[in-house]
Amino acid sequence: MQTLHVELGERRYPIFIGSQLDPKALLEPFIHGRQVMIVTNETVAPLYLLHYQASIEALGKTVAVCTLPDGEKYKNIEHLNLIFDALLEAGFNRDCTVLALGGGVIGDMAGFASACFQRGVYFIQVPTTLLSQVDSSVGGKTGINHPLGKNMIGAFQQPQVVMADMAQLITLPERELSAGLAEVIKYALLGDLDFLSWLEMNMDGLVGRDPVLLAEAVYRSCAHKARIVANDEKEQGERALLNLGHTFGHAIESYMGYGVWLHGEAVATGMVMAADLSHRMGWISLEDLERTKKIILRANLPIRCPKIPLDDFLAYMSHDKKVMNGQLRLVLMKQLGQAVITKEFDAELMKQAILANQQ
Amino acid sequence: MQTLHVELGERRYPIFIGSQLDPKALLEPFIHGRQVMIVTNETVAPLYLLHYQASIEALGKTVAVCTLPDGEKYKNIEHLNLIFDALLEAGFNRDCTVLALGGGVIGDMAGFASACFQRGVYFIQVPTTLLSQVDSSVGGKTGINHPLGKNMIGAFQQPQVVMADMAQLITLPERELSAGLAEVIKYALLGDLDFLSWLEMNMDGLVGRDPVLLAEAVYRSCAHKARIVANDEKEQGERALLNLGHTFGHAIESYMGYGVWLHGEAVATGMVMAADLSHRMGWISLEDLERTKKIILRANLPIRCPKIPLDDFLAYMSHDKKVMNGQLRLVLMKQLGQAVITKEFDAELMKQAILANQQ
Repeated sequence: MQTLHVELGERRYPIFIGSQLDPKALLEPFIHGRQVMIVTNETVAPLYLLHYQASIEALGKTVAVCTLPDGEKYKNIEHLNLIFDALLEAGFNRDCTVLALGGGVIGDMAGFASACFQRGVYFIQVPTTLLSQVDSSVGGKTGINHPLGKNMIGAFQQPQVVMADMAQLITLPERELSAGLAEVIKYALLGDLDFLSWLEMNMDGLVGRDPVLLAEAVYRSCAHKARIVANDEKEQGERALLNLGHTFGHAIESYMGYGVWLHGEAVATGMVMAADLSHRMGWISLEDLERTKKIILRANLPIRCPKIPLDDFLAYMSHDKKVMNGQLRLVLMKQLGQAVITKEFDAELMKQAILANQQ
Repeated sequence: MQTLHVELGERRYPIFIGSQLDPKALLEPFIHGRQVMIVTNETVAPLYLLHYQASIEALGKTVAVCTLPDGEKYKNIEHLNLIFDALLEAGFNRDCTVLALGGGVIGDMAGFASACFQRGVYFIQVPTTLLSQVDSSVGGKTGINHPLGKNMIGAFQQPQVVMADMAQLITLPERELSAGLAEVIKYALLGDLDFLSWLEMNMDGLVGRDPVLLAEAVYRSCAHKARIVANDEKEQGERALLNLGHTFGHAIESYMGYGVWLHGEAVATGMVMAADLSHRMGWISLEDLERTKKIILRANLPIRCPKIPLDDFLAYMSHDKKVMNGQLRLVLMKQLGQAVITKEFDAELMKQAILANQQ
């Protein structure tokens, strides 16, 4: 097992990365109060709930469970409210711990609920998908969607601890494994050319779910994110680089309807659009663009999105949080492996980059 | 005009207290971004909305308005969501300011919405009731109710500035003026015997809405709360003293149904119950208890609540946030003008204190 610490002063917390991890021993120091609410979904519960529930009950804790339907389309205020209902019906008070057992949607919703319940209780994250292990379990961003935009309502809520168990990735559907790899690739493209070379060497093994390679990819991705988040917890600057591919990706996800495309799939195509625009701006070469597309394709990810009317696409982009004073900012690549956040791009070239990567 | 600063490090903010204050001049330095959402209610809007809207538009800002129905019963997740709808329909991004124009309910909801929208935008509070001027505009507590308990869902969100205009109290209904005086009396009872004497001298003038006396009462109350909050922002210790009367009061409010009794009315009777229990514990004299009841009565506040079955009363109290590890803690008076938070009280005497102050 490897341990990574996210350095956030008094909110510093560890990420445990390994295989067949023991929740009883690892989580005990991080559970506050006597009451633990496990928030999970209908897909994860039959696989892993009993193990976690029994492990925590063996610590003498009272465990209640809130099982939500599975899917991004349930990441809304109505289903958030089901968590509050469960907490209050079980008589939980402010000295309790909420444990997220599931992917990014469960982590976002359980985390946001823990930030709001009684104005804030303790939070533990057990991400069960590759995507949530490398991305949404690090950084404290939680929240829900709104019909007019993704992640529009939320809070910064740091967990007490994150436990990422590679053994749980065996049951992950192929599409979701690939979606997780999209975020892994993102860390290479935004700031680590060595990691890109490593991925080019090991992508077949990652797609084949080699647990040692997966653990290494998760560790390197988390280390990148942890470093960036520690420097910029509230996303004033450097942290925005983590949104490489996301502004385009959010437009794709929003237009398609939440949950039709997986987040990682939309980000993959979004990264192609960002790379394409970076190329059209003269910042990266055609070879760099092709190299970006190739590693994304090798992870079984889409490099084009369906035909979306340009006006709709732009309208959804303008709802993105990187709009500042009405001016769109994008994360682009000044060089391959070196992303920047900028409003200095050509709007016409951006439209071309969007259209060129649609079916 | 008097200015009080709430000392919270980098989240330090001023409270302006006066009459006929100029929003354009006073608020300009505290508005972030070009977009301002005024959240108000159907009672306050016809009286004060145009003045604020025009003043802020005169600063070159885009102003949108979200007008909610008036009343504690609308302080729920459905009506919170209307604020998010309004923000997104108006195309607001994360660089915007939410201004609460109304009483405590509007302040709590607008504040919570500003804490969650885009994971946090800027917040300005213009409290238009005496209660919200002396209490809910100081301290950063925001939130909504749940059918199983008051203020169960929320956030700590500090405003950029608070503007308390005594001229707005002229239109306040009598019951609401009294409800505000309940919280003023609370500051005297919990920590300032001199202030209690001042209130005993000036209560008739306060009920008669003398603006100079009201400003003084608001200033002294806010100063007390600001000092306590600055010492203990997240309610780990001293701040819990501010809940004098609130655990009993929450039970009354919850049982009656939100909005049937005003918050201040419930707190008034709750303070009588707390004083009664303090007397039964031998901590304050019968004369102190009578003095407590008398100042509450002189503010036209109830010293008894309707008959509520004891089991229901206790069940609602146990949902209160001052329950720690299943053990109820109460704010009681060790002496008149000196409150403590304690779990060292006799449960039987507590039941007697509840029953003795019902009709």
